[in-house]
Amino acid sequence: METTLPFAERVNAVRGSRIREILKVTDRPGMISFAGGMPDPRLLPAPAIRAAADRVLTRDGEAALQYSISEGLYDLRAWIAERYRARFGLNVSPASILITNGSQQALDLIGKLFLEKNTPVYLERPSYLGAIQAFALYEPRFVGVGLHAAGTDTDDLRRSVQRNGPGLFYSVPNFQNPAGTTTDLAGRERIAALARTTGILPVEDDPYSELRFNGRDLPPIRALYPPTLLLGSFSKIVAPGMRLGWIVAGPEVMRRLVAVKQASDLHTNVFAQKVLLEFLREVDLERHIAGLRAAYGRNRDAMVDALRVFWPAVRFVVPEGGMFLWCELPPGASAEELATLALEANVALVPGGPFFIPGLGADAGDRFFRLNFSNSTVDEIKTGIRRLAALPLGVANERANNSILHV
Amino acid sequence: METTLPFAERVNAVRGSRIREILKVTDRPGMISFAGGMPDPRLLPAPAIRAAADRVLTRDGEAALQYSISEGLYDLRAWIAERYRARFGLNVSPASILITNGSQQALDLIGKLFLEKNTPVYLERPSYLGAIQAFALYEPRFVGVGLHAAGTDTDDLRRSVQRNGPGLFYSVPNFQNPAGTTTDLAGRERIAALARTTGILPVEDDPYSELRFNGRDLPPIRALYPPTLLLGSFSKIVAPGMRLGWIVAGPEVMRRLVAVKQASDLHTNVFAQKVLLEFLREVDLERHIAGLRAAYGRNRDAMVDALRVFWPAVRFVVPEGGMFLWCELPPGASAEELATLALEANVALVPGGPFFIPGLGADAGDRFFRLNFSNSTVDEIKTGIRRLAALPLGVANERANNSILHV
Repeated sequence: METTLPFAERVNAVRGSRIREILKVTDRPGMISFAGGMPDPRLLPAPAIRAAADRVLTRDGEAALQYSISEGLYDLRAWIAERYRARFGLNVSPASILITNGSQQALDLIGKLFLEKNTPVYLERPSYLGAIQAFALYEPRFVGVGLHAAGTDTDDLRRSVQRNGPGLFYSVPNFQNPAGTTTDLAGRERIAALARTTGILPVEDDPYSELRFNGRDLPPIRALYPPTLLLGSFSKIVAPGMRLGWIVAGPEVMRRLVAVKQASDLHTNVFAQKVLLEFLREVDLERHIAGLRAAYGRNRDAMVDALRVFWPAVRFVVPEGGMFLWCELPPGASAEELATLALEANVALVPGGPFFIPGLGADAGDRFFRLNFSNSTVDEIKTGIRRLAALPLGVANERANNSILHV
Repeated sequence: METTLPFAERVNAVRGSRIREILKVTDRPGMISFAGGMPDPRLLPAPAIRAAADRVLTRDGEAALQYSISEGLYDLRAWIAERYRARFGLNVSPASILITNGSQQALDLIGKLFLEKNTPVYLERPSYLGAIQAFALYEPRFVGVGLHAAGTDTDDLRRSVQRNGPGLFYSVPNFQNPAGTTTDLAGRERIAALARTTGILPVEDDPYSELRFNGRDLPPIRALYPPTLLLGSFSKIVAPGMRLGWIVAGPEVMRRLVAVKQASDLHTNVFAQKVLLEFLREVDLERHIAGLRAAYGRNRDAMVDALRVFWPAVRFVVPEGGMFLWCELPPGASAEELATLALEANVALVPGGPFFIPGLGADAGDRFFRLNFSNSTVDEIKTGIRRLAALPLGVANERANNSILHV
């Protein structure tokens, strides 16, 4: 007996991560991993970070190592604000930005701030696994909303909100994880209008929008509906190991978020904040991001081509950016079985179940699986897809009707 | 209107931090700050951290910047385990350690894992403000427990547990923040025995024990009662800005803690973890810690002497280590008034109110205030105490009866 004190009920809502289990075996020799959502390690800017760390600790070591404020480094927040202005003409003040330990912590803080037991949380089907996990700890009532190739099914969202009342609406509008979909401008406008009339609060999670390979940037939902909580991250454009993300929110929400952040961990690592800021100021960031886009875009093309050639029975929507392809198996095949067989053939992928709301999980998700293309070479991608296509799934590898996915 | 979605009720439990307000003015020119709990910036090992960062990013940059595991870096956990063995003969495996964003996050994760609404949380009067804030978000029932110069009043704890039932018992047994008290060995044994018979779960928060100026190390409560959750931190011996702390727990609690950590922020900054580990391996740590002990010990002595000479009306227990002196004003004086007058005289300190459980706050705490001695020079300490002694508090500066504090 470790302790006689029982765990809180909320902990039962946290499922062990299937991705986590799969990731445990991805460093096996010969394994090709399409499982995680990791950047290509060869594109992590270690030399420039090293130079930045050296300058920060030489010039400003005491402040980089001392306690700091819960809001995060002002100059880093100002840098983020300026980038919103430059990219979207979006007017965001540094005071409306809170630096978090990656955007995963942003989700936790938002859950703490807004979720009572049974507060509705509207999630697309499928949705980001980490958001389901973060919010689940606050025991909300998850409500599923349809997802089209053009993003959120806003008709379904409207009907759901009419039935279930105000709550959080969580969405990844650009290159959704896992589905790869992007909500088009008309969809964003409908979401903004719905929020205005129904009182749902959009949580706009945007870790991927800098990784667009084709098509044009769309305005954030926050530009159309300013109360929207907008989340960003340096994990995909600089380095996930530094755990630096942020929330954009208005003054009243921000005041509360800062208090909750302070109670949760005082403040975000200021050493990493200062090193990152120095990196951002000194590096040619446009060139760095262009390099990421080119490499990941090539990888996406290689994966799309390999699927079309070797595994035509699988359906998918081609994402315009990000890190993932979301695939639908032919009728009769199981993604859980696929994942198990794939591991035996030294390919890791994530079956769809965990991306669906608890309760709807396995059934809805078992037709789907997620492939990551940012952490493999073009050759590995081709080899991996060939291996998958050759697995004995017990269904014919016939060309699928490549119509729009509709979950 | 920022949003029509109301805040969760738990947020009302989070009080704005009085310390935070006071800290805002501590960088005013001429201000002597006894307010925060910050290490002396001149003792932060910036050059050695710089060398460590350089080596890590040269040798191991990709892993330092990539996603990592929720448990934290294995080798850092092994280092911590070895130090417990060396210091206390305490057998702790690396697998029983979770790396957190400072020990403040450890408190939040423990709250998430164990606290239902109205679960009893036993807290000494006074107790660490950050623990009150972290736990408050889970809406527990706080129960106050007396504190002696020799630590927790275990008779009071036993009676309280008999009345209120099992729950968490939170304590800082070494150089308590704010009271400076250390729970003696007999007290630790009584706490262990109580935990064994009543089912309370001790949360042993130990950020300061490496900063002992005199007297001898005592075994952790965990050595006497293994289910105890033991918290540690690198903030006081290396650098708070890196936000690195840990929890020691048994396998079942650890499995759950890791799931909760993953939901809360995926994992702790691995860049900082690797740099810290490299620092710990390369620096002469005993010498570094001896330097901290010598400096802070000198500061404590200077503050104790100055209080005895210039302000004999104030009562306090001399702490054997740590960073704080906890002082009691003569009858009729108010610590809130003292804090306000002190700021006008360019001295910052923290009145006692926030260190008491909400509801008992202002009344119980207004006789007390906390002085930090780690972030000032000996000269500043003397000057600051003279300024405080000269404030027009409306009570005589007569020598106090220096008997043991009993809150």
